[in-house]
This record gives sequence, structure tokens and C-alpha cells, in this order.
Amino acid sequence: MTADVNKDRLWNSLMTLAEIGGTAKGGVRRIALSDEDKRARDLFCDWARDAGCDIRVDSIGNIFARRPGRSPDAAPIATGSHIDSQPAGGKFDGAFGVMAGLEVVRALNDAGIETEAPIEIVDWTDEEGARFAAGCIGSGVFSGHRDLDKALALSDSDGVTVAKALEDIGYAGPEPAGSSRFGAYFEAHIEQGPILEAKGLPVGAVLGAQGQRCFVMTVEGVDGHAGTLPMAKRQDSFVGTAKMTVALSELASTYDPPAVITVGHVRVMPNSRNTIPGKTIFTIDSRHPDAATLERMEADMTRICQEIADASGLTLGVEAVTRAEPIVFDENCVEAVREACRKRQIRFMDIHSGAGHDACKVASVAPAGMIFVPCVDGISHNEFEDARPEDLAIGTQVLLDSMLAYAS
Amino acid sequence: MTADVNKDRLWNSLMTLAEIGGTAKGGVRRIALSDEDKRARDLFCDWARDAGCDIRVDSIGNIFARRPGRSPDAAPIATGSHIDSQPAGGKFDGAFGVMAGLEVVRALNDAGIETEAPIEIVDWTDEEGARFAAGCIGSGVFSGHRDLDKALALSDSDGVTVAKALEDIGYAGPEPAGSSRFGAYFEAHIEQGPILEAKGLPVGAVLGAQGQRCFVMTVEGVDGHAGTLPMAKRQDSFVGTAKMTVALSELASTYDPPAVITVGHVRVMPNSRNTIPGKTIFTIDSRHPDAATLERMEADMTRICQEIADASGLTLGVEAVTRAEPIVFDENCVEAVREACRKRQIRFMDIHSGAGHDACKVASVAPAGMIFVPCVDGISHNEFEDARPEDLAIGTQVLLDSMLAYAS
Repeated sequence: MTADVNKDRLWNSLMTLAEIGGTAKGGVRRIALSDEDKRARDLFCDWARDAGCDIRVDSIGNIFARRPGRSPDAAPIATGSHIDSQPAGGKFDGAFGVMAGLEVVRALNDAGIETEAPIEIVDWTDEEGARFAAGCIGSGVFSGHRDLDKALALSDSDGVTVAKALEDIGYAGPEPAGSSRFGAYFEAHIEQGPILEAKGLPVGAVLGAQGQRCFVMTVEGVDGHAGTLPMAKRQDSFVGTAKMTVALSELASTYDPPAVITVGHVRVMPNSRNTIPGKTIFTIDSRHPDAATLERMEADMTRICQEIADASGLTLGVEAVTRAEPIVFDENCVEAVREACRKRQIRFMDIHSGAGHDACKVASVAPAGMIFVPCVDGISHNEFEDARPEDLAIGTQVLLDSMLAYAS
Repeated sequence: MTADVNKDRLWNSLMTLAEIGGTAKGGVRRIALSDEDKRARDLFCDWARDAGCDIRVDSIGNIFARRPGRSPDAAPIATGSHIDSQPAGGKFDGAFGVMAGLEVVRALNDAGIETEAPIEIVDWTDEEGARFAAGCIGSGVFSGHRDLDKALALSDSDGVTVAKALEDIGYAGPEPAGSSRFGAYFEAHIEQGPILEAKGLPVGAVLGAQGQRCFVMTVEGVDGHAGTLPMAKRQDSFVGTAKMTVALSELASTYDPPAVITVGHVRVMPNSRNTIPGKTIFTIDSRHPDAATLERMEADMTRICQEIADASGLTLGVEAVTRAEPIVFDENCVEAVREACRKRQIRFMDIHSGAGHDACKVASVAPAGMIFVPCVDGISHNEFEDARPEDLAIGTQVLLDSMLAYAS
């Protein structure tokens, strides 16, 4: 029992969807619960109904499009992602996962396959977090990571709440969020990184998502006149920050597998050309797939920064702002993805996700796995985000085969 | 023939002057050509007239208060500094030099000394550069470093020109700026650095002022996702900037005498916690008293930064924004200061000025020298700027003796 995905149909659906909120540079601006999001949701629902699906919407706006199975009571085998985008986002982040789900249903229809368990495509509400300053709202509520009422009360910069925005676009559904359960959940997504492309592989079997520790570091020294204060007498917070940044960057490569450590936000005070900076605030974003290593990284990073501060006559403040534990996907789901590749002789590799995804939330309430496909130059969250039609089709085929293994 | 300065009179004059524009924190806000500057100028003129001086004002608002000598045609031996302050400045920067000049005249009067050459006290217009975005306006025009008409046309953030501001406060004088010449010029000033205080010395004989080279450095790499881009694939402009900053800081101590190199202004783009910075712009302020060394520093700094950029896959743009050559004060003026110290058994050291002063401008049209006195903790351009009455008196005594050596 097999079904083959249609590469051109998948690509055409993605390109048609990308017209909604399409930007001049070829990207997409489809902010969650905006008019563009509504039109894209409507289009998805139309297509899913045309493909024989029943549509349900839950109280946080998640859309469930179900292709019935022989056993109506069996937990559905689900897939999905999100239709919302970054303010200047691309055509593939999220949209690929939803359109891949639609292609799975269409291909099953073409092949005349009736599965035992239902197949369900989900469009999760607001994964990007670009409007309400909180990401994975829909999948977070569904999986119990977020409280429904608190999520509905989140407001955007104009004071519009999630509840009001859902009503405005007609997607405040009657189904209690989180009342349905999945037999398994698979999500197809572009990698958003350069690894698959560099290795020339069309598929990554995602083992899990890296855990994350973020810190705000405050380095305090003493302001001084850039002309009159000798180097030996300085307590230069920015020179200290520079030493810490170099040390953190070197530290990252000492872990196995390699960690990532990023100093992304830096604020120098007073930030005047002829004044020695008395105070610098910077952020550390550190990620690793292993919880114990992440713990060790935190200890190493704070120790190294403290040693530099002590040696430089600076004081150091460390504030932890994010502690997200690593996600480990279900071993059987991961193996189903690998097995689907093997059966079609598709070359693949095991990979960790550096970013968060809806699947990371769903993983706590259902067996979950992900399928990565390469994106051009690893670029994402950008209007120039791109992917090759053949890679997207291969990834979707692996998605179909993986789901079929569970739904048969 | 000697005259002794009066410590308490000097201190009281300084404290009375500091009431004009005095701030709650004990500092001074006396922006150039403001109402506070006018009132301080008026007070200085009143005091100088009371001490027997004739007042002249030139076309850029510089005030010359002359105590006549026996030879009315002899070039006057001049001293002075500025009465304007930083927006949140201290009681001593500039004000000390003008009040020291007044005390010299008063002490000569007390001692009944008539000098051969006239003694002249100058209050230079707008040394600080806090209002018209250009410093040393008065001494710059006087010495030919600035064009009079261009200086008069400079405008503040409200569009008020120097010409209009001078008229408004009644200090647009009739004397053509730069028409008078000095036999010599000595300026007393707080060090604005920590060296004299650290060495426990009341006087520095200033050899000259450091030259300055300032650069805007633009480091360009590639933006990336902090979670998905492996360290080895990054082109992180901020890690590059950090390496350059550490290397520049270490480089400074390799010169003899030690140079100062400061990274004071840093702008990281996009400056987001979870994005690898694709672009960083930072400034370098480098200073050294020797022109050849300054030249070598520029070459070393750009080479080191370029090497780091090349090794990190980054591009580097270097824009030179300031090239001020070192100032070397007149050897006889410097020796007069040293000799004045020796004769009164005042401990002193030779020192370079890290900051610019009116004397640095005047040095190109008259033999010039400076006398530094310690300031508490090296702090200046700050409301907490402070100095000890005894140090100020000792510095003023050295000023008097140095001037007398020339004026006798």
C-alpha cells in the first residue's frame, strides 16, 4: 500500500498560498490572526474540504482538517505546522508543513487508500510569536504548556487581545482546546540551518530540539576620559565584555556535539567615542541538545565570565531569562522517519533542531517526530528564504510514508 | 621680586563663580554664551576691573583683561582658560585657569609689583564644544585654526548662531580676533586624569598634548539564527569586533610611553538576542604624544583588525574621522614651569595632556605652556569633579612665578 506525492501540486499550492501576504521581495508578511492569516486559513480550509476533510476549529483557533479512517474512534495520525509568518518572513517556514499535510491527503486520495486511523492536518495558531510576544500559542495551549485564558488575554502592541483577534477573523472555534489526542504527530519543516544543504542530503530525521539557556549579563566598571586615563588604570566594561565574548565563542566548540553560544544584543554605556564605557549589558543565547551538557555549559559560562570580570576589576551581574529543556522526540516516530527514507533509498541524516517548533510542544502529549528538508543557504525568517521543489517533495513523501506506517 | 598667592581668596573666587549655573549635585551647568555664561563673564570683568585691569573683547567674544606693565608696547604675558562648562560639568575645568589668572594679578597688586610686560588674563569663548558641536572656538579663531566667519555661523540645536548668541549676551566685541599677540601664554588646569593624584604630586609641567587618531570601523559578516547555525559556519561580526577590541587593548601597552586606545561607541546589528550579529560598527579613539608613534599605531591597529577580519571571514571598513597631531609646548615655557617648582621646592613631574585645551591652539601663535594640578579620582566633565584648595594654590603660585619670570 503506497501513495506517491505530486511534486508540482505541492509546489503550486505553496506558491498560491504565498500570494496571500506576498511581499515585493518574494517573501511573505502574514502576521498571526491578521487579515492575511484569515485569508490563508480560509484557503487551506477550502482545499482541505475539497480533499474530503472535515474541519474543526478549537478555542485557541487551531484548525483540524480530518480525513476519516476506517476506525472513526482511532486516534488520528496528525501532521501540520503553521500558516502565520514573521513580519518579513519567507514562503516555506510553517507553510510547507501545512501544505505537505494537504499533499499527503491528496496523494492518499489519488491512490484510493483508506487508512485505519484518521489522518489529520493541523494549522497551529501563531507559532511565530511576532504579534503577541509569545510563540507557539496554539500548540502551547493544545499541549497544556499554556493556559487558555492567559493565552486569549495576550495583547498586541495596539492592545488587541488574542481573543478579540480570533473573533474578528472568525476563528474562535467551539472545540475545547486540547480535548483531542493524536496517535502520533509528524511535522515537516525546512531546516532553517545550513547542515543538510552542506551535506547534500534531502532529509533530516529530527532527534529532538536543543535546549536553551539565555542570560542577560551586566558588566560594570568605571567611566573614564579616553584621553587621560592610562590603560593600566581602566575598568573598561566593554573590553571585559569583549574578552567574555571571545572566551564564550571558543568555549562553544569544546562540547560534544558542538554547542552554540551567541552574544546577540549588546548595549554599551555611555556609548560615546571619547569615553571609556563604564557599563555594558549583553545577552548570551546558548543551546545544546543534551540537558546535562546544557547545565554544564551554564556553569562554565558563568565561571569564565566571572573570572574575566575579577581579573579586570569589573563586577558582573548574571540574570537567567530563558531555561528551556531539550526536547527528545519519540524513538518510534524518529525510526519511522528513518525507515521511510530507507525504503525509498532516500539519503538522510539524524539532526537536532536548533529552533523551536509546534512539534516540540505536541511532543509532551503525543508521540512526535519531525522531518527536515534543506533550505537554500540555511536562510530563514527572511524574505529570501528558499527551498527546492524536489527536496520539498521528498520530505513530503517521507512524511506520507511515516504517517501511513502508523495509520495503516 | 616675589609675590605669594592667597589660597583662600582663590578658593572663594572659584566658589563664588561656581554659584553661577551651580547644580544641586555640586557641579556647574554654564553652557557657552548662555545667560549663565554671560553672568560669569560679567563677574569676571568686574573682578578684573577691580584689580586694575583694562577689559577688551574681540569679535569672537574672547575677553582680555590686561594689567598694564612698564612697557606698554611689550607683548603681554598671558594666562587664561574658559568659563563655559559641560552641560553637567564641574567647578574647576576651565574656571580654575581663569580664576588662577585673576589671583596672579591680585597677588602682584598685593606685593606692589610692577612688571615690565603687561599681564593679561583671557577668558576664551566656548572651549567645551557642548553647544555648537565645535570646541575651542575662541582660541581656535584667535590662533587661526578656525575661520572667524565660519565660527560665527555655527549654530546650536535651536538654530541660534554663535554671532547671534554673542550679540544676545553683549559679548560681540570690537577688537578683530587674533590681532593681539602674546609674549608667552601659560594655562593652569586640573589634570582631568589620575596620574598626579596617584603619584602624590601637586604640579605637572605639561610637555604637550597627545595627538589623536579616531576611526569608525565597520565589521560585516552574515546574520544568522542563533539556534541553527553551527559555530564553525558563522561569520559573526560581533565576535570579530570582540577579538579586535581585546587585541587593540593589548596593543596599547606595547608603546613607549604607553598609548591609550579606547573602543567607546559600539553598534551591533540587528542587536537581537537570538540572531548572530551580521554587522557591527565601532569607534577607536587612539592617542599618543609622539607623531611618529601615532602613525605607527594607526598602521598597527588597522593591520591587526584586518588580520582578524580575514581570519574570521569578515569584511572590514576603516574610516578615519579625526587626525589631530600632537602638540609640543615651548621648551622655554615648560622649563619656566619646572624652574618655578624647583625654586619653591614644589615636587612636580613632566606630564602629557590627554585632553585638548585652549593652550594647544595658542601654542601655534605664541610660546605656550601649561600647569596641571591634581583633581580628585581623576574625575572631570562630571558634577563630582573636585580639587583640593592647597593644590590649586600651589599650581597658581607656579603660574605666577612662571609668568613673572617672563614679564620681569
